[in-house]
Amino acid sequence: MVIVMQPSASEDDLSTVVEFIRSGNGEAFVSRGVNRTVIGLVGDVDQFDDHHLRSLQGVADVVRISAKYKLVSREHHPHRSAVRVGGVPIGPDTVTLIAGPCAVETFDQTLEAATMAREAGATLLRGGAYKPRSSPYAFQGLGPLGLRILAEVREATGLPVVTEVVSPADVDLVAEHVDMVQIGTRNMQNFPLLQAVGAIDKPVMLKRGMSSTIEEWLMAAEYIAQRGNLDIVLCERGIRTFETETRNTLDVSAVPVAQQLSHLPVIIDPSHSGGRRDLVLPLTRAAIAVGADGVIVDVHATPETALCDGPQALVHADIPLLAAAVEAFATASGRTMVRTDRLAV
Amino acid sequence: MVIVMQPSASEDDLSTVVEFIRSGNGEAFVSRGVNRTVIGLVGDVDQFDDHHLRSLQGVADVVRISAKYKLVSREHHPHRSAVRVGGVPIGPDTVTLIAGPCAVETFDQTLEAATMAREAGATLLRGGAYKPRSSPYAFQGLGPLGLRILAEVREATGLPVVTEVVSPADVDLVAEHVDMVQIGTRNMQNFPLLQAVGAIDKPVMLKRGMSSTIEEWLMAAEYIAQRGNLDIVLCERGIRTFETETRNTLDVSAVPVAQQLSHLPVIIDPSHSGGRRDLVLPLTRAAIAVGADGVIVDVHATPETALCDGPQALVHADIPLLAAAVEAFATASGRTMVRTDRLAV
Amino acid sequence: MVIVMQPSASEDDLSTVVEFIRSGNGEAFVSRGVNRTVIGLVGDVDQFDDHHLRSLQGVADVVRISAKYKLVSREHHPHRSAVRVGGVPIGPDTVTLIAGPCAVETFDQTLEAATMAREAGATLLRGGAYKPRSSPYAFQGLGPLGLRILAEVREATGLPVVTEVVSPADVDLVAEHVDMVQIGTRNMQNFPLLQAVGAIDKPVMLKRGMSSTIEEWLMAAEYIAQRGNLDIVLCERGIRTFETETRNTLDVSAVPVAQQLSHLPVIIDPSHSGGRRDLVLPLTRAAIAVGADGVIVDVHATPETALCDGPQALVHADIPLLAAAVEAFATASGRTMVRTDRLAV
Amino acid sequence: MVIVMQPSASEDDLSTVVEFIRSGNGEAFVSRGVNRTVIGLVGDVDQFDDHHLRSLQGVADVVRISAKYKLVSREHHPHRSAVRVGGVPIGPDTVTLIAGPCAVETFDQTLEAATMAREAGATLLRGGAYKPRSSPYAFQGLGPLGLRILAEVREATGLPVVTEVVSPADVDLVAEHVDMVQIGTRNMQNFPLLQAVGAIDKPVMLKRGMSSTIEEWLMAAEYIAQRGNLDIVLCERGIRTFETETRNTLDVSAVPVAQQLSHLPVIIDPSHSGGRRDLVLPLTRAAIAVGADGVIVDVHATPETALCDGPQALVHADIPLLAAAVEAFATASGRTMVRTDRLAV
Repeated sequence: MVIVMQPSASEDDLSTVVEFIRSGNGEAFVSRGVNRTVIGLVGDVDQFDDHHLRSLQGVADVVRISAKYKLVSREHHPHRSAVRVGGVPIGPDTVTLIAGPCAVETFDQTLEAATMAREAGATLLRGGAYKPRSSPYAFQGLGPLGLRILAEVREATGLPVVTEVVSPADVDLVAEHVDMVQIGTRNMQNFPLLQAVGAIDKPVMLKRGMSSTIEEWLMAAEYIAQRGNLDIVLCERGIRTFETETRNTLDVSAVPVAQQLSHLPVIIDPSHSGGRRDLVLPLTRAAIAVGADGVIVDVHATPETALCDGPQALVHADIPLLAAAVEAFATASGRTMVRTDRLAV
Repeated sequence: MVIVMQPSASEDDLSTVVEFIRSGNGEAFVSRGVNRTVIGLVGDVDQFDDHHLRSLQGVADVVRISAKYKLVSREHHPHRSAVRVGGVPIGPDTVTLIAGPCAVETFDQTLEAATMAREAGATLLRGGAYKPRSSPYAFQGLGPLGLRILAEVREATGLPVVTEVVSPADVDLVAEHVDMVQIGTRNMQNFPLLQAVGAIDKPVMLKRGMSSTIEEWLMAAEYIAQRGNLDIVLCERGIRTFETETRNTLDVSAVPVAQQLSHLPVIIDPSHSGGRRDLVLPLTRAAIAVGADGVIVDVHATPETALCDGPQALVHADIPLLAAAVEAFATASGRTMVRTDRLAV
Repeated sequence: MVIVMQPSASEDDLSTVVEFIRSGNGEAFVSRGVNRTVIGLVGDVDQFDDHHLRSLQGVADVVRISAKYKLVSREHHPHRSAVRVGGVPIGPDTVTLIAGPCAVETFDQTLEAATMAREAGATLLRGGAYKPRSSPYAFQGLGPLGLRILAEVREATGLPVVTEVVSPADVDLVAEHVDMVQIGTRNMQNFPLLQAVGAIDKPVMLKRGMSSTIEEWLMAAEYIAQRGNLDIVLCERGIRTFETETRNTLDVSAVPVAQQLSHLPVIIDPSHSGGRRDLVLPLTRAAIAVGADGVIVDVHATPETALCDGPQALVHADIPLLAAAVEAFATASGRTMVRTDRLAV
Repeated sequence: MVIVMQPSASEDDLSTVVEFIRSGNGEAFVSRGVNRTVIGLVGDVDQFDDHHLRSLQGVADVVRISAKYKLVSREHHPHRSAVRVGGVPIGPDTVTLIAGPCAVETFDQTLEAATMAREAGATLLRGGAYKPRSSPYAFQGLGPLGLRILAEVREATGLPVVTEVVSPADVDLVAEHVDMVQIGTRNMQNFPLLQAVGAIDKPVMLKRGMSSTIEEWLMAAEYIAQRGNLDIVLCERGIRTFETETRNTLDVSAVPVAQQLSHLPVIIDPSHSGGRRDLVLPLTRAAIAVGADGVIVDVHATPETALCDGPQALVHADIPLLAAAVEAFATASGRTMVRTDRLAV
């Protein structure tokens, strides 16, 4: 940590800052320049709050060097982790395909989507029972009934299930029914919810907030890890920008950046980022090429009647193309597709 | 609602869309042009989902004309509303000052801040007992103890209290202790939380999500209203942009825009938007000048030891300036400051 | 300037960096911590390029402390400057109103707008002869004919004139005809154009790039100053964000921030930032309240036939409201409106 | 084009709008709903300005359906174009690699970078003689001397040359010396410069403005096309967002979107978007995977001494990796690398 003094700071100001640091058992190294003095602060700096230091008389700026997260950081955990979901691995040298409907509507619709997912090479099924929707008048998901449908479709297809949870009160129920719980983009900084999923023994997929920095994303993961659950999969799903041709702007750079800062697997959601069916395949290819550990895709047999996000769902005709693309780009990336033999017929 | 067909759409595509609308008891007016055909859709259009319509074969775009919110809209409630908090009115022709510490730390600190708030002309006390923090290692608030302190300080000063709630499970407890509950920027789309505060009989202050559009903000308010609670105060607190000199960019335009679209009062938080003490007074002046119904400001007697957001808190020396500024700009705006006689000594 | 070494940096890496700095006559102070070493760099640091330093083996980060601009900085020029335009002052303790049509269309239209401007209390006339338009099919301005019209209207009204220049080749011609040349938002980083207006002896109004940081804005001003022209007025006109209700988001915080970093006057354009007539008055009030040294506003007698930006122009009915608002908020801000007696009838 | 009337619009308002359209030889179709009336406008709608229509009494909104650009649009030119640069094709079914130093510093440095470029499989050489820099104190390029060096290196290596032009006055000189002129991100809306390169007979690479929408990018291309030069290559180079880990956010979605809207080739610059050497390879892979027609990459033998953007330049050790990645991902994409036999030894 480095403290930059103002040009106008007095010797007294300087002494006060140095005393403050030493009283907290930190070490302070003072470097005097022509216009400015700089204090290097080492030792256990996590106890010092940047804001406090900035409030001290004469302080111009505080530059924190060490990361604001630890458990999810790669600094003390240099090897990238794999997370297993119902036996299916995600990361670090493979590509895992997750697919399914945006929202669970009926058993038949979910089963058909799961069948499409399997044909595309997916080894995990996605599907929403609780849907956070901007409008209170939009379909909010089937809730517990949706969870039961997902469990039945898992039974029928052998695909482990990923589903979103939106309320701390529902976490236990959801965790009972599915193999990985998802924290959606709007809840990335819903801290009670993060703490709740930090206390379960199922893996968690943490979507990046649509306007969160990578650092905030990793701090959100740290909330989960701090409660004891380190089985976290990060999911980039597009960020909010000024561009209006796409619903969000897929930030592919976030994948190598997050993989460098954190040991957790990082996957991409090409469906929600673009919000357009015609972009799902190119963005899937880009996702794998940039080094994502997996891809999560919406599929729906009849998207024109879907209760949620129909325009971005892949249809039957897209499935062979998706399967071929994932295979080809995993190979070009020197990775192998995750396959599984434990699937029922 | 207007449906724009693709240039390549066939007559069959057109018929399908028209049939679909009529089967839903909507009326469809077809306008044929040289290159394109356009369908005007009237009647009860809320039942039609934009995404569904966009999925129909041949449809290029769907333009929704009516607002996605109703209860908070000004369309059916043309007069701007006042919300009363413990007897203190907010809006539509007055300026209400809310002030207090970012976080409740001790009884003495809170009382001192409340005294500063009163000196500045505040008639409501703010103070956080539950603090959503980006880092799990930062101070998270005193919780129930903080609520008790706030209640005691209200007793001592007569100032009704506003405090944040972050979890649906805490809503009833918080509502018991305070006069207005606040939904913070990170929770603007925490829908279970919105629904929970929609069910209480205390007013709600809804901060705008730091990257939410005004439309999303009003839809979030609609979530609260839909559960029966229409005592909602909107609070603009800065949005996330590329600029790094300020923590967020205060969007003053959002005040007149939201006041035009919604009948709810709109206030501004100049402390969290800038994140800098030196900007609080100029932004307070701008807030009142642009037409805000109130301002909510951080004050702290010793911000250099504050456990949260010290660098943005006004100090003793700022209080007379704040009082004078609020008075002068309320007057210039043709509004009166809200005063109260029910305060204890 | 502070250089932060990587945790893995070797002693050799450290020596190389220190040698590099000393070979450039800089002084290096080394602070060793438990995990990291930090080098304080003082002396004439402007010669060191941040990027170079970052490229050295073992360097993790480089933090520049001193500003990247000098001539426009307040560090060496502590008092805020006034710029005089045809005898009319802008800043630092007054409010100057500039008004006129977005584009010059005819002599009559420009004269009528100038008359409206004067009635509103404007002492400078704005009007575009060269219009940078996103579409090549939109009206691009009258060019030299527009300049002649502006000169004639100045003659008729006594109002000095501000107009935009878009090409280095036109700078001399424009400077001959008008009293202040304007660099528009799209040209804020058109460096040959900045250099060209840096060489004239007329003041320059520099609009902030719609997605430029305040630091980039001040560096752009430095380009002008470096060529010898320090008569620069900064103009905030809204930045690009995700919000779509307004054309741009007016960043009122930029005014006090820029005034603190630079001695140059800072004004606001409330017409282009919102892009909506109904927002011009509230944003004008906010502009003055936040401390702007002036406001520049579009007016047009018949905006429904305007060739450019009609929807944001104030009309006859708005003029008395504008005059009253500017007067009232200047007074509340402890500033005086700039008036002039040299105007012809 | 669709005109949406306000709920409060009168019959007179409606008649005025309809008359206005018919007087301009447009056809107006009126659709009356319960709350609103909508007017479909067909025929030659380009003559109507959206802003004018919005200014008419009673008009709530105007929705333009047809694109604001024509010559670069795919609507009337359905097949994607190839652009040939000194004999080297860019698009539509191949991958072209362009590489070289950010800035030309010396003949030797440029030759060495060109040699690296060829080893990586590049068939075009990039290199800047005129550098637009945010700070007036940064290296601005060698100017005409840089052009001569580029011409000599082309002679020595056989690689056609791409270089940036920043001023209309330099366009002819630059065009004489090089094979493709580049418009940089800061000049995307420098309309006189666009018009100047529209008049030459060399291809133009148009970088997307760092905060420009895809629509604005295509309108900028239209400025060039309108002057007669249709040999335009679009280059996505990252957009400005709130994320600070990367210099800009590479918008890979822009490639398929722009290719769908326009027939022009679209390439990606992975060096300037991320601003970090470690991201260049992953972003290059993503660029090809998403469907880019080429990639333009910075290379430098000794980036620690580079006068511009050293931290993002690939070095000798990266070259074989780049060559392998481009080859593998072009193949996975079903495209072939552009090779050339006309290169000298």
